[in-house]
Amino acid sequence: MEAKIRNAKAIALKNARLDDPFWGRYTRLVTEKLLPYQWRALNDLVPGAERSGCVENLRVAAGEREGRFHGYVFQDSDLAKWLEAAAYSLTWRPDPALERQCDEAIELIGRAQEPDGYIDSYFTIEAPGAKFRNLRQGHELYVMGHMMEGAAAYFDATGKRRFLDIMCRTADLICDKFNTPEFSAAYPGHEEIELGLFKLGKAAGEKRYIDMARAFVERRGVDPDWFAREEEHPDYVTVWGRGGLDRLYHQCHLPVREQKTAEGHAVRAAYLYSAMADIAFEYGDGSLLHACETLYGNIVDRRMYITGGIGSSGAGERFTADFDLPNASGYAESCASVGLAMFCRRMLTGTGDGRYADTMERALYNTVAAGVSLGGEEFFYVNPLEVWPESCVEGTSMEHVKPVRQRWFGCACCPPNIARTLAGLAGYAATENGEDFRLDLFISGRYKTPMGEVEVRTRFPFEGNVALKIEGGGGRLALRLPGYVRDYAVLRNGERVEAELRDGYLYLSGPWDNDTVEYRLEIPPVFVWADTRLRAAAGRVAVMKGPVVYCLEEADNGTNLSALTVDTKAGLTEDYRPELLGGTTVIKARGWRDVDDPSGGLYRFDEPQREPAELTFVPYCLWDNRGPGEMAVWVRRG
Amino acid sequence: MEAKIRNAKAIALKNARLDDPFWGRYTRLVTEKLLPYQWRALNDLVPGAERSGCVENLRVAAGEREGRFHGYVFQDSDLAKWLEAAAYSLTWRPDPALERQCDEAIELIGRAQEPDGYIDSYFTIEAPGAKFRNLRQGHELYVMGHMMEGAAAYFDATGKRRFLDIMCRTADLICDKFNTPEFSAAYPGHEEIELGLFKLGKAAGEKRYIDMARAFVERRGVDPDWFAREEEHPDYVTVWGRGGLDRLYHQCHLPVREQKTAEGHAVRAAYLYSAMADIAFEYGDGSLLHACETLYGNIVDRRMYITGGIGSSGAGERFTADFDLPNASGYAESCASVGLAMFCRRMLTGTGDGRYADTMERALYNTVAAGVSLGGEEFFYVNPLEVWPESCVEGTSMEHVKPVRQRWFGCACCPPNIARTLAGLAGYAATENGEDFRLDLFISGRYKTPMGEVEVRTRFPFEGNVALKIEGGGGRLALRLPGYVRDYAVLRNGERVEAELRDGYLYLSGPWDNDTVEYRLEIPPVFVWADTRLRAAAGRVAVMKGPVVYCLEEADNGTNLSALTVDTKAGLTEDYRPELLGGTTVIKARGWRDVDDPSGGLYRFDEPQREPAELTFVPYCLWDNRGPGEMAVWVRRG
Repeated sequence: MEAKIRNAKAIALKNARLDDPFWGRYTRLVTEKLLPYQWRALNDLVPGAERSGCVENLRVAAGEREGRFHGYVFQDSDLAKWLEAAAYSLTWRPDPALERQCDEAIELIGRAQEPDGYIDSYFTIEAPGAKFRNLRQGHELYVMGHMMEGAAAYFDATGKRRFLDIMCRTADLICDKFNTPEFSAAYPGHEEIELGLFKLGKAAGEKRYIDMARAFVERRGVDPDWFAREEEHPDYVTVWGRGGLDRLYHQCHLPVREQKTAEGHAVRAAYLYSAMADIAFEYGDGSLLHACETLYGNIVDRRMYITGGIGSSGAGERFTADFDLPNASGYAESCASVGLAMFCRRMLTGTGDGRYADTMERALYNTVAAGVSLGGEEFFYVNPLEVWPESCVEGTSMEHVKPVRQRWFGCACCPPNIARTLAGLAGYAATENGEDFRLDLFISGRYKTPMGEVEVRTRFPFEGNVALKIEGGGGRLALRLPGYVRDYAVLRNGERVEAELRDGYLYLSGPWDNDTVEYRLEIPPVFVWADTRLRAAAGRVAVMKGPVVYCLEEADNGTNLSALTVDTKAGLTEDYRPELLGGTTVIKARGWRDVDDPSGGLYRFDEPQREPAELTFVPYCLWDNRGPGEMAVWVRRG
Repeated sequence: MEAKIRNAKAIALKNARLDDPFWGRYTRLVTEKLLPYQWRALNDLVPGAERSGCVENLRVAAGEREGRFHGYVFQDSDLAKWLEAAAYSLTWRPDPALERQCDEAIELIGRAQEPDGYIDSYFTIEAPGAKFRNLRQGHELYVMGHMMEGAAAYFDATGKRRFLDIMCRTADLICDKFNTPEFSAAYPGHEEIELGLFKLGKAAGEKRYIDMARAFVERRGVDPDWFAREEEHPDYVTVWGRGGLDRLYHQCHLPVREQKTAEGHAVRAAYLYSAMADIAFEYGDGSLLHACETLYGNIVDRRMYITGGIGSSGAGERFTADFDLPNASGYAESCASVGLAMFCRRMLTGTGDGRYADTMERALYNTVAAGVSLGGEEFFYVNPLEVWPESCVEGTSMEHVKPVRQRWFGCACCPPNIARTLAGLAGYAATENGEDFRLDLFISGRYKTPMGEVEVRTRFPFEGNVALKIEGGGGRLALRLPGYVRDYAVLRNGERVEAELRDGYLYLSGPWDNDTVEYRLEIPPVFVWADTRLRAAAGRVAVMKGPVVYCLEEADNGTNLSALTVDTKAGLTEDYRPELLGGTTVIKARGWRDVDDPSGGLYRFDEPQREPAELTFVPYCLWDNRGPGEMAVWVRRG
C-alpha cells in the first residue's frame, strides 16, 4: 500500500475544535446532558429509570460494599464507555470537575481490579471460579476491551497514565492466558477486545498487545466449536443457558478471510470488521484487507438500510439475508451504526477511498444522530424505518420497537456508545498524513493540520457551501466529493479551479498562504429508489438531501402515513425553518392521500378514491421530538 | 330469540354424504393419509419427524411402561383430536379396522385415567402433586376438553359409550373440584374445557356439565389475577417459568361481556368466543350474545387477514392491534382459523345470519385448506400472506415462518385440528331445524333433511352453479347468498323464481316433490382492496374468486414478486386447468415488472424501468405444492 496512505491517521481530537451548526447541538449535549445524565444513571441517581448498578458493582467487586451483582453481565462496560466519552470531551472542553470524576472512577476500577490484572465485576462477585470459562456469554473480554479503549482515550486526552497502567496489567494477563495451550484457539463471544488491545498497544507502545489483537482475529472461526466445547469444562458457568450455539450469530462459522457475507449479531459483526481493518492496515495484510472489502461490499450493496442502519431482525439483533430489510420490524441498533461508522473510518483512513466516507456519513447523520433526542435525555436503541405506535404491542413480535425514545435501558450499551461517538466526532471529520489534510465530513471548526490551521465554515447538511481558510504549508488539501453530489465547483481565492479527482476526493496542491477555498456542493432534495430486489422498498421512494434521509411524521401529515402516495414527477421543494426541531430544512412534495368510507368493511370490491395532498418531510434523525406518532421513510410512489 | 332459530342445528354428520370436487380431495386425505399418518406419528413410527411420544405417554401414565413424559405438556390432546377426526370419518366411511384402533386407544385412555376421573399424562407421570395448581400453563383442562369432544364425537358416530363414560368421570371430577370454595373463581389458561363440557353434556344428557362450561365462561377475568396468585401455592409447579402474566394473552383481562376487542393468543380467543356462543344460545343470554357479536365485529372488521387468518404476531401467536395485519411476519395459525370457523358455525346456527357463513367459508377455503399439502403429509402451522424463503432465517424474527409445509411438528396441534375439521366438514355445510333445510356452504353431496333427501351438485368454487334436487316434505329451502355475489338467479324446475332474501339467505317454500332447483351465482374473478387503514395492503390489491383468495407464486411468475405491479384497469381472465395442482382455476392479470441494473447499487437516484408482464394467480390454499418459492397475496397496484 502507498506510503502516503500508510501514514494516514484520523485527525487527533486535540487538533480539532468543532463549532458546527448541525453537530454543535449534539456535541453540546455531550457535556451538558449525556455525560452528567449517564453519570447519574450509572450511579443509580435517576428517578424512573431502570437501575444500572454499574458503579455499585465495582464497589462490591473492590470489597468496599456488600451485595450482589446487578444488571447485565457486561454492565462494567457502561462505565468504560462513559470514561471514553468523558476523555474525548476533555480534549475540546477542559473541565476539572469532570476530570476529577474520571480520576475517581479510574481509581475505583483500579481497586476492583484483581491482583493478576483481571477486571470484570460480574465474575469477581458472582463466579470467581469461572473466569474465561464462558467466552461465548461471559463478556469479560468485551468489558476489558472497552476499558482499554477508555484508558487509551484518557491517556491521550490528559497525559495521565493511571488508567493505562491498570489496563496494561489486564492486557498482560490476557497475553499470558490466551497463549497457553488450553486457550490458544480461543476467541471472544462478543468482539471488542481486539479493538481495545489495538488501541492500548498504540497508546502504551506495546506491540505485544497488537499481536494479541491480531491473534484473536485470526483464530476466530478456525475452531468453530469453541463455544460448544467450553460448556464441557467443569468450571463452566452459564449466563443465558447452555446449548443452541449459533455460529453465524458470533461470526465464528468460518475463519474471517472466508466470510463473504455480513452475518449474525450486527454489533459483534461491525466490531469484528473494524478490528479486521485495524489489523489489515497495521500488518499490510492484503488478504485480510480483501476480506474487509468483501464484507463492506455485502453490507453496503445488500444488507444496509438507507439510514446506515444494519441488523434487520429484532430477534438476535442481527443480519438476515441479502436485500431483506423490513421497514417496521427491522432493528438497526444504534450501537451497530456506531460500529459501521467505526469500520468505515478505518477503511477510509487506510485506503483514502471516499466511498467509505459516504457510508460513514450516512450512518452518522441518520441512525447515530437519531439515537438521541433533541433534549439529550432520551435514546433510541432500535431505529426502524417505519413506526406505527399502536402496532408496537408488548408481548408481540414488535415489542423490540419502542415508538418513542426511552430514558435509559436495562441493557444500556447504546446511550454510552452514542455519547462516545458524539464526543469523539472530530475524529471522523478529517484525516492527515503529516503532509496533507483531507476533509472527510463537512463539519465546521478549526483543524490543526500539516498546513497549519484550516478553518472550515459550513451550514451543511442544510446548505452545500463549505468555506475553508488554509493557513500555510506545502501539503495538499483533499476535499471529499460525496457520491450523491451531481454538481460542484471549487473556488480558490475567488477563482474557479479544476482539482484532481482521485478516489472520491478533489485534491488541491499547496503552497498555501491564508488562502480561501470555497467548495460549492449542489445538494438539492432528491428522490431515492432502491434496487428492485429490496422488497421492502418495492413501489416506494425515499427523500434525501445530501447524506440526510428524510421521513414523514404524523405531526406534519396526519395519521395513517400508508395512505399517502408521493408524485415523483412533481418535484421537491426545500425550506429552512429555524423554529422547527432546533432549526432544520423541511422538504415538501406533492402527492395524494387515499380516502374511503370507514364503514365499508375491511375488504372491499371498490378501489379507494384519492385526493391531492402535500407531503412534508423532516430529517429522520430529528423524528420523535414532537411526541408519539407515526413515521415512515419509504413512501408509496405513484 | 325466534323459536325457529333456537331449534336450528348444524346438520348431523350421519345425515350428510359429501362428494365434492373441491373438498373431496381433502376429505379423502383424511382417511387415506391424515388419520393413518397421524396415527403413526402419535406412535413414533414416522422416520424423520419430530418424536411425538403421545401414545407412549399414556402407556407410562397407565403404569404399563417405564419412562418419562415426552413432548409438550398438552401432548395427550393430539390423540383426543385424532379420535375426534376418526370418529367423524366413521360417520361417512365405516372402517372396522380404524374403529378397532379407536377402541384400543380409548381403552388406553381409560387405563391412563386415575380412579377419581383425572386424565392428563403429564401430571400423572411428572407432577402428580401439582394437579390443577397451574391452570395457566398446565393445560389439563385443555386436554380433558379435547378428550370430551372426542368422546362425544365417538358416541355420536358409533353409539359406543365407553369413551363417554370415561370422560363423564372426568367431568364429574371437574364439577366437584371447580365448585369448591378454593377453585370457585378459577378458569383455564387455554380455553377448551368449555367446549368439551358442553359437547359432553349434550351427548350424555347431563345439564350439570353445561352449567360448568357456563361457569368457566362467566368466571373468566372476573378475577384477573388468578394466574398470578396460583403461583404462591406450595404445590404450584411451573411449566414455562413463573411471573410475567399477560392477561390479554389469556383473555382474562376483563369479564367476557366487557371485552370489546379480540385480544391475545388467537386460538385461545377463538375457543373462548366459540364457548361464549354455545352458552349464549343455550341459555338465551342476550348480553352474552351481544358480546359475541362485538368480538366478531372487531375480528372481521379490523383484525382478520383476507384469508380468514387471525393472529398477526409470531411472538405470542396472537392478536396485536386494529388494522395491524403484516403480510410476511404474520402468524395466522391454522388452528386459529379452525377456531374462527367454529365460532362462526355457532353464530350462524344460532342467528341464521349469512354473514357468519361468509367468514366461516373464508377461513375454510383459504387458511384451513392451505394447512395441508395436496399429498396430505405436510402441514402449515403458520399461514403468512407473503413468503420469501431466503428471509425465513433461523434465529431471527422470521423463524416462525416455514416457507414450506412440514411433515410434523414438535407442537402438533395443527395437523389434528385440520384433520378433525376436514373429517367433520359436513357439519359446516348445512343447518336444519326440523322443518327447514339451509345450505350454508356449496358442497356437493346428499343430505338427509326435513325435506327428505336433498342432493347438491356443484363445481364450486370454480363454477358458480349449484344444482339441487329436493325429495319432498313441506319445509323451506334456504340458500345462502354470499356477500361477494353480485348477480344470481334461482330457477325452480327450470323456471326463474323470486326468493325472499332474509339475513343473507334466499328462502324457497315447499311443498317439494323431487323438484330441481338451479342456483346460479355469478362469481367472476375480482380485485379486492382493503380499508385504507390496513397498512399492510396500502397501494396493493388482492384477487379473489368467490370465497377463494388467490396469490402469486414464484413457480408461475419468477423470483421477486415485489417487482410486479398489477394493472387493475386491465381486467382478469380465468381458466380452469385440470392438470394443475389437482385441477384448479387459474386467474391471469396484466401488469408490469420493475427492471433495473443489478449493479447500480442498493440506493439510487434513478427510477427503475418497467416492462409489461402477465401475472398468474393460483388459489392461496394450493400454494407450496410445487416446491419452495416466493408467494404473495397482496400485490402492488398501478
